[in-house]
Amino acid sequence: MAILSTVLSGEDSENYTRSEARMLELAEKQPGYLGRESARTADGRDVTLVYYADEQSLKAWRDNAEHRHAQRLGRERWYASYEVRIARVERGYRFEAPAPGR
Amino acid sequence: MAILSTVLSGEDSENYTRSEARMLELAEKQPGYLGRESARTADGRDVTLVYYADEQSLKAWRDNAEHRHAQRLGRERWYASYEVRIARVERGYRFEAPAPGR
Repeated sequence: MAILSTVLSGEDSENYTRSEARMLELAEKQPGYLGRESARTADGRDVTLVYYADEQSLKAWRDNAEHRHAQRLGRERWYASYEVRIARVERGYRFEAPAPGR
Repeated sequence: MAILSTVLSGEDSENYTRSEARMLELAEKQPGYLGRESARTADGRDVTLVYYADEQSLKAWRDNAEHRHAQRLGRERWYASYEVRIARVERGYRFEAPAPGR
């Protein structure tokens, strides 16, 4: 999985929005894509968690030519700062409360 | 690190808020604590990323008696659902745009 924590510069925001939508679409088409969560911190950072089946899929996505181009524009224009973390999910579990009234 | 993705039930929210503040305070005091990010998804889930230096610190925090008690109340009252993922950060990098006008 990748954890991407970003702060936008505010510059060229229309193209950013278009590119972001395109990147989400492309990321989903990438083999090994499992899902994502997008959230926003109280201080205005966007945190996106992207899950891939394995390291190889994640690297293929990182190296995708269209994605590379967007990354470059991100550094040149769109982001004031960002932080990327690559992590391996080791285990997990889910809790679901019993439906009320049952 | 741990990724905690939660949906509140809305029940007993005053005690939840108090307990949450106490848990954040306790988590920070735990040896090995490195930091956290809290964010909210567009559909109302809270996503909290908590970073610890190693697996041992994370387990000690999971097993903290006061935290255990809060976890139980969380399942009984506060959460409609949650998902926990334990992951190991393998690498990361940070980008900072040059300050404008320099």
